[in-house]
Amino acid sequence: MQDNYQQKILGIIGGGQLGRMVIQSAINYNIDIHILDPDENAPCRHICHDFSHGKLTDYDTVYAFGKGCDVITIEIENVNTEALEQLAKEGKKVFPQPEIIRLIQDKREQKQFYKENNIPTADFILTDSKADVLANADFLPAVNKLGKEGYDGRGVQVLKSEEDLDKAFEAPGLLEKLIDFDKEIAVIVSRNEHGELVAFPPVECAFHPTANLVEFLFAPAQISDEIGEEAIKVAKDVIIKLDMIGILAVEMFVTKSGEILVNEIAPRPHNSGHHTIEANFTSQFEQHLRAVMGMPLGNTGLRMPAAMVNLLGEDGFTGDAVVEGMDEAMKEKGIFIHLYGKKITKPFRKMGHVTILEENVEALKAKALKVKDSIKIKA
Amino acid sequence: MQDNYQQKILGIIGGGQLGRMVIQSAINYNIDIHILDPDENAPCRHICHDFSHGKLTDYDTVYAFGKGCDVITIEIENVNTEALEQLAKEGKKVFPQPEIIRLIQDKREQKQFYKENNIPTADFILTDSKADVLANADFLPAVNKLGKEGYDGRGVQVLKSEEDLDKAFEAPGLLEKLIDFDKEIAVIVSRNEHGELVAFPPVECAFHPTANLVEFLFAPAQISDEIGEEAIKVAKDVIIKLDMIGILAVEMFVTKSGEILVNEIAPRPHNSGHHTIEANFTSQFEQHLRAVMGMPLGNTGLRMPAAMVNLLGEDGFTGDAVVEGMDEAMKEKGIFIHLYGKKITKPFRKMGHVTILEENVEALKAKALKVKDSIKIKA
Repeated sequence: MQDNYQQKILGIIGGGQLGRMVIQSAINYNIDIHILDPDENAPCRHICHDFSHGKLTDYDTVYAFGKGCDVITIEIENVNTEALEQLAKEGKKVFPQPEIIRLIQDKREQKQFYKENNIPTADFILTDSKADVLANADFLPAVNKLGKEGYDGRGVQVLKSEEDLDKAFEAPGLLEKLIDFDKEIAVIVSRNEHGELVAFPPVECAFHPTANLVEFLFAPAQISDEIGEEAIKVAKDVIIKLDMIGILAVEMFVTKSGEILVNEIAPRPHNSGHHTIEANFTSQFEQHLRAVMGMPLGNTGLRMPAAMVNLLGEDGFTGDAVVEGMDEAMKEKGIFIHLYGKKITKPFRKMGHVTILEENVEALKAKALKVKDSIKIKA
Repeated sequence: MQDNYQQKILGIIGGGQLGRMVIQSAINYNIDIHILDPDENAPCRHICHDFSHGKLTDYDTVYAFGKGCDVITIEIENVNTEALEQLAKEGKKVFPQPEIIRLIQDKREQKQFYKENNIPTADFILTDSKADVLANADFLPAVNKLGKEGYDGRGVQVLKSEEDLDKAFEAPGLLEKLIDFDKEIAVIVSRNEHGELVAFPPVECAFHPTANLVEFLFAPAQISDEIGEEAIKVAKDVIIKLDMIGILAVEMFVTKSGEILVNEIAPRPHNSGHHTIEANFTSQFEQHLRAVMGMPLGNTGLRMPAAMVNLLGEDGFTGDAVVEGMDEAMKEKGIFIHLYGKKITKPFRKMGHVTILEENVEALKAKALKVKDSIKIKA
């Protein structure tokens, strides 16, 4: 049998850090990557075979870009799905499928999908306006989420009591019961056209208190085997019910009573899987590539306990990025720095991440804290 | 302290697979890489910041290329060292230093360097011509090596008895006593401007019987601790006596009496270190980058026993490369395929490599053999 993966061009809509890490994997398989991004200096700019500069939400731009590729995928959900649908109709492979991207673009549809498919999730009500939220004050404490265009912590507002109600969104969104969870975990699953379905071991996420971004991640999650198996089962159930090809990150709450509730899903490589580059036998980026290109899926076993720390732009600094304090970290065993090639830093912008490997889980947490305190992105 | 590695441009003379794997590491540090290569379709072509097409042995080409960089390194020894010397004089950082590259370009000078510096090596005599070799027939069995331009198995001839004498080289070279060795091992050492000096654990090489190329590599080498420590001591001694900055691969024989003899050295990432990408905490490619850029050197500990198999072009096939039999290997745990992006295959051309990780050393050898038998590069 001839393996002709290398004869196919993979187009990625979006050229940020996720695309960049996919390219780092694709180099090993001689797969030519074309990138579309609105930023001339996108992280993928210099390491892809072909770079197109254009708007991801514009039909003509996305369609023209896709025509030059054999397989098309995304690294961000906010893209023109009509163009992707047309490309799929014309015989291009588009993974994740356009209708799934459209579903995930709207958190309201996402929640309804869970409900219709018996996927456990927090109770919710759809709201069309601020007035609608106010009228449902008895549903608090809750999280008010914008239906569309929330990203990286934007479009999410916790409403603990009526005093918070003035923060409610005016646009269509939803109110979700605030879950007094024990842990937040994530499971990444992937599925290819040949029906293979593989899950990564669950990881545990710790969020930044104000920026609503993953601040630390630990693998494996400190949960019981039963909860771990249940989380994998739920994540597999989601990708099967979506009938999706590609990689899907499923973020879940573990409630204090041990219940699993799906929080959010992302049909692409995800922040909760960055550690897999060094910590697992197959990285999420390679797995994504394998899934969309129709290659066999790889083994997802964890090689060593790992932590991941996002390197966010320091609050108060905007401008040409300067990384401080890397030297100490570089000397340590098992510390892996990834900078994303973004010229400009802004408060809380994702500028890079660090993976820490360490057999001893206590030492792992201490090292992760130390890395977070020593490496700073300023301007 | 500000870490300004990212503000420096690294130029690599040569854009083959070694440069390609350096770039894969450099992406993590936002280091811009410029490449010079005579092949328009060199493996680094599409993944570097700037690609110059030109002859590596031409003074003007190398000089002009180097002027646009801050730090200059090599991935092949056959380069114009006069241009590099001029660049160093003008304040560019050139690592390895030009005089070391020149020394290593000539195996005769290399051997004399060992002798003058008490570095253990096989006995030898310099020969200027075929007639010279014939006149020294009593030195057989020996290896006849060309002084210059031997590479990837070319320029080396085993002369077991007088019957082999017609294979002797006509050009200046040397005759080296044929060593009835127990094992061939290699130690990669690296050294930066700050005086840091770090060794990778010794590995064991098994050569292809006719092509004189590494066919299998195993890490760790199956040698005693004493021999391992001695090998590291010898390798460190070589880089110190060369006063070299960068990464140096030291290939050695372990004789049946347990003696260590230096065979060849290479002042760049080397085939005997490819497994380090997945098997060690720091890869040789990242270590090379760290050493030449003046970054702290990384921990070289082995994470897991590893084997490495070169994917050589099948004998009898020349033309557009087609990889066969990848699927089975991709399904297995701990198998990592690296293709080098070379369009054209030729018999025994290095087209890629596979690293195999496995705790059980016996299983490791079996898996390495299986990979070698299943993945084929044809045309």
